[in-house]
Amino acid sequence: MIIKPTLILDVEKCKTNIAKMYARAQKYNVTLRPHFKTHQSLEIGRWFKDIGVVKITVSSLEMAEYFSTDWNDITVAFPVNILEIETINTLAEKVQLNVLIESKETAQFLNKNLKYKINFFIKINIGNNRTGLAYSDAESIENILELTKDSAVLNFKGFLGHAGQTYACKGESEIIEAHKKSKSKLVRLKDIFKTRYPDLILSYGDTPSCSIAEDFLGIDEIRPGNFVFYDVMQLQIGACNVEDIAVAMACPIVAIHESRNEIVIYGGGIHFSKERIEDSQYGTIYGLIVQKDGNAWGNLIPGMYIKGLSQEHGIIKVPKSEINNYSIGDVLLVLPVHSCMTANLMKTYLTTKNDIIKMFDHLNN
Amino acid sequence: MIIKPTLILDVEKCKTNIAKMYARAQKYNVTLRPHFKTHQSLEIGRWFKDIGVVKITVSSLEMAEYFSTDWNDITVAFPVNILEIETINTLAEKVQLNVLIESKETAQFLNKNLKYKINFFIKINIGNNRTGLAYSDAESIENILELTKDSAVLNFKGFLGHAGQTYACKGESEIIEAHKKSKSKLVRLKDIFKTRYPDLILSYGDTPSCSIAEDFLGIDEIRPGNFVFYDVMQLQIGACNVEDIAVAMACPIVAIHESRNEIVIYGGGIHFSKERIEDSQYGTIYGLIVQKDGNAWGNLIPGMYIKGLSQEHGIIKVPKSEINNYSIGDVLLVLPVHSCMTANLMKTYLTTKNDIIKMFDHLNN
Repeated sequence: MIIKPTLILDVEKCKTNIAKMYARAQKYNVTLRPHFKTHQSLEIGRWFKDIGVVKITVSSLEMAEYFSTDWNDITVAFPVNILEIETINTLAEKVQLNVLIESKETAQFLNKNLKYKINFFIKINIGNNRTGLAYSDAESIENILELTKDSAVLNFKGFLGHAGQTYACKGESEIIEAHKKSKSKLVRLKDIFKTRYPDLILSYGDTPSCSIAEDFLGIDEIRPGNFVFYDVMQLQIGACNVEDIAVAMACPIVAIHESRNEIVIYGGGIHFSKERIEDSQYGTIYGLIVQKDGNAWGNLIPGMYIKGLSQEHGIIKVPKSEINNYSIGDVLLVLPVHSCMTANLMKTYLTTKNDIIKMFDHLNN
Repeated sequence: MIIKPTLILDVEKCKTNIAKMYARAQKYNVTLRPHFKTHQSLEIGRWFKDIGVVKITVSSLEMAEYFSTDWNDITVAFPVNILEIETINTLAEKVQLNVLIESKETAQFLNKNLKYKINFFIKINIGNNRTGLAYSDAESIENILELTKDSAVLNFKGFLGHAGQTYACKGESEIIEAHKKSKSKLVRLKDIFKTRYPDLILSYGDTPSCSIAEDFLGIDEIRPGNFVFYDVMQLQIGACNVEDIAVAMACPIVAIHESRNEIVIYGGGIHFSKERIEDSQYGTIYGLIVQKDGNAWGNLIPGMYIKGLSQEHGIIKVPKSEINNYSIGDVLLVLPVHSCMTANLMKTYLTTKNDIIKMFDHLNN
C-alpha cells in the first residue's frame, strides 16, 4: 500500500522502450551504448544485457564503480575529474574504461598518473555549448593527439558529442534539424582524421535525436539514456508519446482547496526535483497528472498539472469539474518533468507489479 | 582532501545565525521553534538545544521520527497525511506531537484513528496561497473546532501560518510590508477566538520576516528554518548578508573554456538541485562563487556565477580577467541558491574544520 511519495515503474513500458531503441540501433547500424544515469539500477541494466547490449555509459566515476560488477566496457561521459585519479586507476584495472578529454592539461595528467591503459574520446562541442572543444578547433585537437600518440596508457578512440541542444526543440522537424547539424560536425572530424586514425569511432548522444532521427550515417555508437523512462520534458520536445513514459510518482492528497481549484499533495522538490518546463497551455509546470488504474496509469487528465513545488508540498491545479472526484487520502499519479532527476532523488522503484527495485545511491554506496 | 562535490559548513557562521535568531525571539518575546527541514541533522540540532531551544518544527513525519530521539515537542508543519496514521500514533505515544489540520475530513479521521492525544493547529493561508484555510473562512474553522471540541485525542492549540510570499520580496521594506499583512490575519483570528480559547497561540513562520521584522505583537512562536544556513535566495530577498551564509559547495574544475569565458565544474543538479533565481545583473543563476581560503570562504567574486546545471555538470560564467587564475583540478566554492534543497541532496556536511556531520536520510533511515 502506498502511503508516501513513491516512484512507480511500469516494467512493460520500460522494456518496450529498451527494445525499440535497440531495434533502432540495429536498423541504423550503430552500437547502442545506453546512458545509465537515468535509471541508475543494476537490475534495470540487466534488461539491457538480456537483449544484447554489452557496453554502457555513465555520468560519474562513482556510477562506473557501481556498474562495474556487471559491465566491463564503461564510458564515463563527463570530462575527467583528475582529482579522482585513484578511482580511475581502480576502474581501469578492472574494466575497459573510456573517458573524455578536452584539454592538454588533463591529457598530460593522465599520461603521467594512469597505471593501466584506458581509451579516451576527445569531447567535441556539437552545439550544446556545455563542454567540449569546438569542432573547428584543430589546434587543440592536434595538441591532445600529439601528447598521447606514444602513450602507453592513453588510447585515442575517437570523437564524442552530445547534441543536448535538442532539449530546446519542439517537435520532430526541429529535432531532425538540430541532429543534422550536430552529426555533420562529428562526421567532418571523422573525414579529416580517419586516414591517420583508421579505427576512430564517432560516439553520439541525446534521447531526442536517437528517438526520432533516421540518418546516422558516419556515427558508430549512440548513447541515449532518458528514453528508458522518458518524461514530460521529452513529451514536450516531441521525442515520445504519453504511453511511452514508464515512471510516475504516486503522491497522497493531503489537502483540497475547492475555492482555489487546487489540491495539495505530499510530493515536493525533494521527491520530484525542481525541474520545470514552460507549457504553452499551463505556463510553468512541474508534472502532469494521469488516470490511475491501481498502480498503473493511462492518459493525461486534461487541465491537471503541478503548478508549484516546495520542499515536501506539490500544488496541483484541478479543473472545477474534476475536483469533487478526489478525497484526502487518495493517491494521485504524476508524470515527472525530468525522470533522471526524480529517479536520482527517489533511489527506489516500486513496479506496477509491486516489486521493489533498488538504485545506485552515490552517498551510501 | 576534497576530490568531488562536497557540502562545506562553516560552524561559526551557523552558530552565529542560531544565536542571533534566538536573541531576536527573546527580544520580541516569542518562542523560537526552529524548522529543522533545512539542516536535517541531529548534531546541528544540538547546537540549538545548547542555547535553550526546546521545541522544533519539521516538514515530514519521517523527519519527526528521526528527531524524536533528541526532542520531545515536535510540530510537523505539513498538512496531515492520513495514510501515515501508524507513524503518527507511534510518534504521539513517544513525544508531544503537534500537527496541522485544514479540513474536517482530516479532523474526523484523526478523531477516529488516533490512539494518543496530540495538539493540532488550524493551518491558515496568510498570503502564500499554498496551503491553509482563508483567514476569513469562519465556517470551515468553526467546523473543525466543533468536530474536535469534545475530542479525547485532538487538542486545539491555535492557528499557524507561513508567510512564504516573502520569498518573492526584494529588500527590507517589501518583507516588512508582507509580514505586516500576514501577521494581521493571524492576530485577527486570535482576537476572535481568544475568549473561547484563552490558551490558543499563534505560530508564525518564514526566514525573511523572522530575520528582518521588528513587530511580533500577538505572535507566540516563530518557526524560521533556512536562517541556520541562509543562501543566495535569502541574499537576493534581503534577509541576510553574504557573510551570514554558512554553507558552500566545493566543486572540482574539470574543464576551462576560455573562448566562452566558462569553467565546467563537477557539481550539477544532483548536488545543488535545480533551484534557480533571476538575478538582475546575471539573469538566471544557480549559485554564486566566493573567494576560497582553504575550506572557508570570503567575499563573492564579481561576475562569477553558475549559469546552468545538468545532472553532474555546472557551467560557470567567468570574467575574462579572471579565467586565467584557474586550472583544471582546482576546487571552487559555490554559495547555493537554496541551501535546504542542496543539503537535502548532499546528506553530509564537511565542516571548515574538517569534521563530518551526518544528516537525516529519509531513504535510508
